[in-house]
Amino acid sequence: MTERLGVWFVGARGSVAVTSTVGALALRTGMAGQTGLVSMLPEVAAARLPDVAGIVVAGHDVSDEPLGKRAESLAHAGVLPGHLLAAVRPELEEAEARLRPGAGHGSETQRAAATRLEQDIRHFREANGLRHVVVVDVSSTEPPLVGSDPRLADSEALDAALDRGEGPLPTSSLYAYAAFRAGCPLVAFTPSPGPTVPALAELARERGVPWAGCDGKTGETLVKSVLAPMFATRALKVRSWASYNLLGGGDGRTLADPTAAASKLSSKGEGLEAILGHPVDGPLHIDYVPDLGDWKTAWDHVSFEGFLGVRMSLQFTWAGCDSALAAPLVLDLVRLLARAHETGRTGPVPELAFFFKAPSGSGEHRLSEQWQMLTALAAEMGAAA
Amino acid sequence: MTERLGVWFVGARGSVAVTSTVGALALRTGMAGQTGLVSMLPEVAAARLPDVAGIVVAGHDVSDEPLGKRAESLAHAGVLPGHLLAAVRPELEEAEARLRPGAGHGSETQRAAATRLEQDIRHFREANGLRHVVVVDVSSTEPPLVGSDPRLADSEALDAALDRGEGPLPTSSLYAYAAFRAGCPLVAFTPSPGPTVPALAELARERGVPWAGCDGKTGETLVKSVLAPMFATRALKVRSWASYNLLGGGDGRTLADPTAAASKLSSKGEGLEAILGHPVDGPLHIDYVPDLGDWKTAWDHVSFEGFLGVRMSLQFTWAGCDSALAAPLVLDLVRLLARAHETGRTGPVPELAFFFKAPSGSGEHRLSEQWQMLTALAAEMGAAA
Amino acid sequence: MTERLGVWFVGARGSVAVTSTVGALALRTGMAGQTGLVSMLPEVAAARLPDVAGIVVAGHDVSDEPLGKRAESLAHAGVLPGHLLAAVRPELEEAEARLRPGAGHGSETQRAAATRLEQDIRHFREANGLRHVVVVDVSSTEPPLVGSDPRLADSEALDAALDRGEGPLPTSSLYAYAAFRAGCPLVAFTPSPGPTVPALAELARERGVPWAGCDGKTGETLVKSVLAPMFATRALKVRSWASYNLLGGGDGRTLADPTAAASKLSSKGEGLEAILGHPVDGPLHIDYVPDLGDWKTAWDHVSFEGFLGVRMSLQFTWAGCDSALAAPLVLDLVRLLARAHETGRTGPVPELAFFFKAPSGSGEHRLSEQWQMLTALAAEMGAAA
Amino acid sequence: MTERLGVWFVGARGSVAVTSTVGALALRTGMAGQTGLVSMLPEVAAARLPDVAGIVVAGHDVSDEPLGKRAESLAHAGVLPGHLLAAVRPELEEAEARLRPGAGHGSETQRAAATRLEQDIRHFREANGLRHVVVVDVSSTEPPLVGSDPRLADSEALDAALDRGEGPLPTSSLYAYAAFRAGCPLVAFTPSPGPTVPALAELARERGVPWAGCDGKTGETLVKSVLAPMFATRALKVRSWASYNLLGGGDGRTLADPTAAASKLSSKGEGLEAILGHPVDGPLHIDYVPDLGDWKTAWDHVSFEGFLGVRMSLQFTWAGCDSALAAPLVLDLVRLLARAHETGRTGPVPELAFFFKAPSGSGEHRLSEQWQMLTALAAEMGAAA
Repeated sequence: MTERLGVWFVGARGSVAVTSTVGALALRTGMAGQTGLVSMLPEVAAARLPDVAGIVVAGHDVSDEPLGKRAESLAHAGVLPGHLLAAVRPELEEAEARLRPGAGHGSETQRAAATRLEQDIRHFREANGLRHVVVVDVSSTEPPLVGSDPRLADSEALDAALDRGEGPLPTSSLYAYAAFRAGCPLVAFTPSPGPTVPALAELARERGVPWAGCDGKTGETLVKSVLAPMFATRALKVRSWASYNLLGGGDGRTLADPTAAASKLSSKGEGLEAILGHPVDGPLHIDYVPDLGDWKTAWDHVSFEGFLGVRMSLQFTWAGCDSALAAPLVLDLVRLLARAHETGRTGPVPELAFFFKAPSGSGEHRLSEQWQMLTALAAEMGAAA
Repeated sequence: MTERLGVWFVGARGSVAVTSTVGALALRTGMAGQTGLVSMLPEVAAARLPDVAGIVVAGHDVSDEPLGKRAESLAHAGVLPGHLLAAVRPELEEAEARLRPGAGHGSETQRAAATRLEQDIRHFREANGLRHVVVVDVSSTEPPLVGSDPRLADSEALDAALDRGEGPLPTSSLYAYAAFRAGCPLVAFTPSPGPTVPALAELARERGVPWAGCDGKTGETLVKSVLAPMFATRALKVRSWASYNLLGGGDGRTLADPTAAASKLSSKGEGLEAILGHPVDGPLHIDYVPDLGDWKTAWDHVSFEGFLGVRMSLQFTWAGCDSALAAPLVLDLVRLLARAHETGRTGPVPELAFFFKAPSGSGEHRLSEQWQMLTALAAEMGAAA
Repeated sequence: MTERLGVWFVGARGSVAVTSTVGALALRTGMAGQTGLVSMLPEVAAARLPDVAGIVVAGHDVSDEPLGKRAESLAHAGVLPGHLLAAVRPELEEAEARLRPGAGHGSETQRAAATRLEQDIRHFREANGLRHVVVVDVSSTEPPLVGSDPRLADSEALDAALDRGEGPLPTSSLYAYAAFRAGCPLVAFTPSPGPTVPALAELARERGVPWAGCDGKTGETLVKSVLAPMFATRALKVRSWASYNLLGGGDGRTLADPTAAASKLSSKGEGLEAILGHPVDGPLHIDYVPDLGDWKTAWDHVSFEGFLGVRMSLQFTWAGCDSALAAPLVLDLVRLLARAHETGRTGPVPELAFFFKAPSGSGEHRLSEQWQMLTALAAEMGAAA
Repeated sequence: MTERLGVWFVGARGSVAVTSTVGALALRTGMAGQTGLVSMLPEVAAARLPDVAGIVVAGHDVSDEPLGKRAESLAHAGVLPGHLLAAVRPELEEAEARLRPGAGHGSETQRAAATRLEQDIRHFREANGLRHVVVVDVSSTEPPLVGSDPRLADSEALDAALDRGEGPLPTSSLYAYAAFRAGCPLVAFTPSPGPTVPALAELARERGVPWAGCDGKTGETLVKSVLAPMFATRALKVRSWASYNLLGGGDGRTLADPTAAASKLSSKGEGLEAILGHPVDGPLHIDYVPDLGDWKTAWDHVSFEGFLGVRMSLQFTWAGCDSALAAPLVLDLVRLLARAHETGRTGPVPELAFFFKAPSGSGEHRLSEQWQMLTALAAEMGAAA
């Protein structure tokens, strides 16, 4: 019998969550192939991961737009195949019934909200007889934290502040708090602060849960993470690297706000310098073009110098569908974190750097090295009880 | 005192050889930087390689255009900095005096030619008191061998044929024969048959010399060798990969001949299937555009499929200077093969796959894995006597 | 009351014809917008063209795949919107009933085939009470004619040959023969010989019918026809222009045959030299990549020289849907030729050069000048009775 | 005998002025070809323009870096051929001797500065026996004017303000004031306010001098001005148009300041909406990448819709050398304005829109139509006395 695995989405009605949900249902019915699923490659499957067909979806969202309607929009935009959507509609209705209102906009205190969110998750786990529930944050990007707040410095200070009725947590971290208190692993698929706040990192260890982040590496940054090592190992000197990103959809709209974009720009930018070993000149823009919908086009221009100072260039254009790139990685991470939990890992899992722009617990940005870390983890977990 | 290392170029008056020669002279005077030189990276330098400043250049060519004139053309085309050329002109004249007429177009038998070529190399080594001379083939690309000639099947059959006054060897293999007979390591920087003919591979082992090839991986294929693994480890399905190469210069002219281009197309094409694990549809063209001179522009278009069948694309344009990309790799290979010879390696050196489109002795085409093989070799040689 | 206008497609089951057919039906129901329809722009509509809502479709094809099935494939490929297809399905069934078997593969003589084709067209016109029927060739590309056949030199010689039971006509010209004999204007939307054979050009004048061709200018050549004049009027010297075309679909498959591709390569190539006033170096390839389906990606690289010999470059990538680009032009041409017929034009109509890669009767390839010719024609026809 | 024509550069030591100066000298010696010179095309030369070989250069600049040194930097960067620079060095020294200190940074009043600048220009004209001196502003871009200053509203108010010792003029307009007072035509090659201030436009008419502007159309905007009409006349709906510009050099540094860039962004942006007839979504960035020096790379991505709502895209990359593109246009404009002056034109010359991003006196942005306006002007001037 297939053991069932719960996924609790924060932002359950967003494009990535809906694509992941429909994809998981389609995988269960055998209508979807394994393309894009890293966890199906033999080197990763070696970890003895929970079956993808056993995934049960639920989650929080502040919106109340029906899952079915969102899924139709995605089908209309070419992200989801129409026939597949028709086939999983009953199961999608069931998932709809499991969604609960999110937090962050009401009058409740953060303590009250945290308790409510935690209970929602616990109730989902018990009602469905799930051994693991992995929480996945795919909600809108929040700005980075500015300055340091002593109330976020450790777990005890945080609890005291919450008990006093204060609300020091960014919303993404409030969800992380609820997840860890419910004993659930967490995937921080956005660049929001979430579990990276010191008090929460401490809480994860106290509760013995693993987590992974931050910010899914799905497109232009993915390409950078193989091109930059090429220049480095060939001793070619990168003189400038310009990165332009055009995107529509909800993510584009959020990132049109410069304070929210700051998180994303920071996570996108950090890899290049880490790989090349020196700062690199050049602009990095994210522009919102509503017309593009869920599609993303990125253009990068790299100017580099070769032997005897000769100047050369490489440019690439990536035209991808954000949700279609992100959704299988979300399912991969859910399976991997559930297994990591099972084998006793706690805190950030650096071996999952392969999936992230700003890998928590690791300074490794080169995709190939990240792949080796991932397959080593899989082998280790495969050998565990 | 710096130990001196000889380089014997086959095609000594071509763009790659002249750029390598001027570059080596500039490195000796301290006027050139280390950009593009892989052997200067600490992970490779760990092999304890002969000093780049000790390199002495000589070689064969069928042309008699003076080195100085070729160098001026390259300076005019922006491949060589003018001031640098002025600074090394006396040493360039000395190198000119060491060049000897090539083979392949006269009335001499292959036996006579082989003996003459071998003596030229031996004389160079002795006259200059060199411990090692590495022969580097950077001459025009020859067509691939068609069918199998029993005279090329083993070393003995080959010698017998040469003794009978026959000429079964492709010109590139004739040079390889002379090199091995002179006890010299060989770099096959072109896709010509050269040392890959069975009789010569056997000869190399008999004479105890190492060699490396084939076909320097300098541009579009280099980029492919990092992008293809990205698709593979992300479980994205490459549906088609179109590769277009525009190049001018002597190499372009040679490759405008379809029989010569066959070698290059074959070496360029083999990596993709090896990395992705399945044949990939899509055209692969090399077009001669005289206007581009020593510059090369390649455009690749990759159509791939992600989760739930969504189609996406990646395209890149590489605008590079062929000689500036090739020359430092030539110097790297000379240093590495000299050291490999010293540490007792014979036959093809698979750990040098990093430098080649069609690596002899290795089926590994992924750049990152090739880099690890290279650094492991460097560590091993560094630890040798 | 809207006057009804007949369109007779040669290749009625191909992608372009089916897209045109569904588009015409959708325009009639008001479900389609005017995007892409040049004849709806005020400067062209000034010609007092027959109403697009009055278009009735029929045609020949050698295939018997149902229109509805082809339309579904196009909807699946994103060329036709699914909801629109559903709405016009009854009318599509009616069109299906009007299709007749094509010619070229049977045992009938060309005389017999010509008579049959002509009668099909005449019957369609009468049965539907149509004032005009415009024949549109959108069938597979044929190779260019090689050498000159005296039987194709004039109308009389051709008839004599047909009467003798011979078959000197390329299939595309056989259809043109039938069209002209039926008194119908013709659009040669492919580069096949069609009406350009001397005997047929003469026949068109004898029968008093206008025609337009050849080879619809829908994509990469369209872009060239605005970029090349830019270089010319800015006195910038184009040194090389490389053109690469990737396409799937039926057209791609046909063009994968080098003899058929010769027609297309010739019509694609002629404009550049005409505009720039000198031959231009550089490859021109059309490559069949089945994976791309009805989509076409072209990459052009232009190397040019500016003041004092400085080298610069422009490159562009065009990603278009062939049928979606061609279909509205087909409808435009049908309306324009019907009106031209009405106003007494016969023979090739050079003012329709705007629509073609190899404009019959005109040496003008610059899009802007072609636009002025077109709008002048529209004004002239608008002023006619 | 060749009649001599004076050019007075504002910003005489900048890249564009130095390239123009060296180019003019090289044309005089016959060492430079006519590539890039629009005024040498027969349709424009028909205007009977003053001989390019008779051009004498002088000008103002606030910098005192020697012309020769700037020219060497440009030669090093590949903008000027080294051998050509060597050949014109004596004449360059003569030009150096004619340069005078610019205005805008000292303690003198604007009245005093204006008088000084005017006298410099008058003295140049007389000392060299020149019939015409055309002033060309190629200095750093200034921010646009904000609000309206009554002192700039008319010529009288302006003079009164200057007489009171006030300084209401932007620096570019101060130069325009001096030019017009000296009776000289003016080319506003930058987007700075210059002659567009109402008081100055009035002054030009009072003094009977023609002028042309603003902001030379040299690269990405040039390409837009042929692509946008293509979409318009093909009835294709442009949904978004993203424009990214990477540039180094002095111009890049100036434009890295957002207030200065505002002028440029405004002149770059206005054409698209004018041509397409509706606002177009999409970002427009200019980014300073010092590494690129005098070279400019622009990438544009156009998303458009065709028949039945199908989405397609066009993207282009322009890699150009700013000064090499601008310099010949500067020489063209000098010749055309001198002739326009001679034939009695005053005020802005709309027929010179061909050369500018924000054409003064004209709303026409389509290159082809601008070309026709230009050639009509040339024909008219050719027929004048």
